[in-house]
Amino acid sequence: MTKKIIVLTGDRPTGPLHLGHYVGSLLNRIELQDKYKQFVMLADIQALTDNMANPHKIRDNILDVVLDYLAVGIDPTKTTIFLQSMIPEIAELAILYGNFVTLNRLKRNPTVKTEIQQKGYGDSVTVGFLTYPIHQAADITLFKGTLIPVGEDQLPIIEQTNEIVRAFNNAYATDILHAAKPLISRVARLPGIDGKAKMSKSLHNAIFLSDSADTVNKKVMQMYTDPNHIRVEDPGKIECNTVFTYLDAFGTDTTTIAQMKEHYQHGGLGDVKVKRYLADVLNGMLEPLRQRRAVFAQDQQAVMACVQSGTHNARAVARETMAEVRHVLGLNYF
Amino acid sequence: MTKKIIVLTGDRPTGPLHLGHYVGSLLNRIELQDKYKQFVMLADIQALTDNMANPHKIRDNILDVVLDYLAVGIDPTKTTIFLQSMIPEIAELAILYGNFVTLNRLKRNPTVKTEIQQKGYGDSVTVGFLTYPIHQAADITLFKGTLIPVGEDQLPIIEQTNEIVRAFNNAYATDILHAAKPLISRVARLPGIDGKAKMSKSLHNAIFLSDSADTVNKKVMQMYTDPNHIRVEDPGKIECNTVFTYLDAFGTDTTTIAQMKEHYQHGGLGDVKVKRYLADVLNGMLEPLRQRRAVFAQDQQAVMACVQSGTHNARAVARETMAEVRHVLGLNYF
Repeated sequence: MTKKIIVLTGDRPTGPLHLGHYVGSLLNRIELQDKYKQFVMLADIQALTDNMANPHKIRDNILDVVLDYLAVGIDPTKTTIFLQSMIPEIAELAILYGNFVTLNRLKRNPTVKTEIQQKGYGDSVTVGFLTYPIHQAADITLFKGTLIPVGEDQLPIIEQTNEIVRAFNNAYATDILHAAKPLISRVARLPGIDGKAKMSKSLHNAIFLSDSADTVNKKVMQMYTDPNHIRVEDPGKIECNTVFTYLDAFGTDTTTIAQMKEHYQHGGLGDVKVKRYLADVLNGMLEPLRQRRAVFAQDQQAVMACVQSGTHNARAVARETMAEVRHVLGLNYF
Repeated sequence: MTKKIIVLTGDRPTGPLHLGHYVGSLLNRIELQDKYKQFVMLADIQALTDNMANPHKIRDNILDVVLDYLAVGIDPTKTTIFLQSMIPEIAELAILYGNFVTLNRLKRNPTVKTEIQQKGYGDSVTVGFLTYPIHQAADITLFKGTLIPVGEDQLPIIEQTNEIVRAFNNAYATDILHAAKPLISRVARLPGIDGKAKMSKSLHNAIFLSDSADTVNKKVMQMYTDPNHIRVEDPGKIECNTVFTYLDAFGTDTTTIAQMKEHYQHGGLGDVKVKRYLADVLNGMLEPLRQRRAVFAQDQQAVMACVQSGTHNARAVARETMAEVRHVLGLNYF
């Protein structure tokens, strides 16, 4: 039996999407939707694991995130965009999977371990946060996702998923659950405009896809460059110089960029000039997105209807898989 | 606002019910169903937490447990009997509650702690087992259970539930979740026929409600009495003498029983004689149950239809509460 490739991916809708999302995952999805069946999940239940005090923050971001999707070219006729919270089968499956995973195993998950350390949770970590890899295994397998776009740091999530798949399939001599393969992002993580390792809304170092040209200009002008490049005539460094990192990521005129790099390293090219060039590059790229976004934003009801329809289709798939799981476990009473 | 008292109780359907259930919970339910709204849950999802290798064991016991319910007089027109696995809202709510409970808190739960020690799980405890108090909090609160029949050892489950209720209601300035009160069983735990602390199917020391008169006779003859009461004329002890413990629990002719106790302690009353008397008491009590059971067992479809109808009614309540929870969290998209 050949299994069709199914892509399952998504975002925690905790804020509007930014350039980091664009190069890290969104561009990828536009390619994938032409090759495979693709599900893009608005992971609002997982977003709640560290936003329980303010759940409406999640809700308030849904529309913006979907507008970002549509603006970049994720096409709802090719990609099933759905809301995690509207698929109860995910919760049902996650509860069952909890019987296949030990506490030890969860605590050993490197991704979760690192996050728990970073957030300083220790044993005061909530059950919701600690167990999110189980929940993700439910997301992936419910939709029979076989190709999962991830960053290197998320590989343990795929491993955990496949452990559950093997344990389940072995326990009941079945093949209803499908193993998942990671599709590792080719693009290194985009730094924030402050040069910090990660662009993130909460670090206030993000350029959003929905930012106006003016805002982009302002943010680019604040960007971290070479702190020792003080006078225009000084030679500057392009390594760890965020402006050049962005030019590498978003610029298309590689000849000009190569010349600018040389000039900058040699001395005589000012930061402001390079920044103006980058701002033009970014705005040139973002302008068509902004225009598409504006068109979609005119009819918010239609946008949410598209999420509703995607969720409806996703739920049909979820119901089918859950029916298979119930059949195997004898939980199909009536 | 006065809140109506709602009883939520149930059993893990891992085997037919026995005399321990009868005095410990079933008799109680027959009283409660006349006073309050009562839900009795067949906790098949919770039974899976330590039966994942053999899920059909659970399924195969459902009918027997329901026949036991009907035989003892739990009346489906008064009591809502339902199947946990057919109420997906329980899983949905449990996942959300996981965000209100820390790993530390779970590990400190005395009931769970003791069980983990007894079963020798340590940190190799599964997530499903470790988190069952969260799942029970979902069971209780989804049906707005306010009176929960429990043994002393299960009080921490009620405490955990009420902690979640307070955390949720405080977080969202709501009162949709209702605090639960324990109804502590007046009856001490019934020992098994081997005199061990607990009657249990897995310890092979149980007299089942569905046992034939013959089986009851045989089991009573094997019962643990006073090991030093060797000859009839010897004085015997009635303390820790399971036969007398059962006579206290099930006998109605207290005068005769008092006389027998005196005679036994004085010497001259043989074990076999007391056992025959107990067997008669038990069979006298069980005979009407057996007859009712036989009648219901003739139409298994009708029995399962009654579970289906109970589950249908329970689901309506579950949906209502879940809609309230979704409204509070803003998860009510369409």
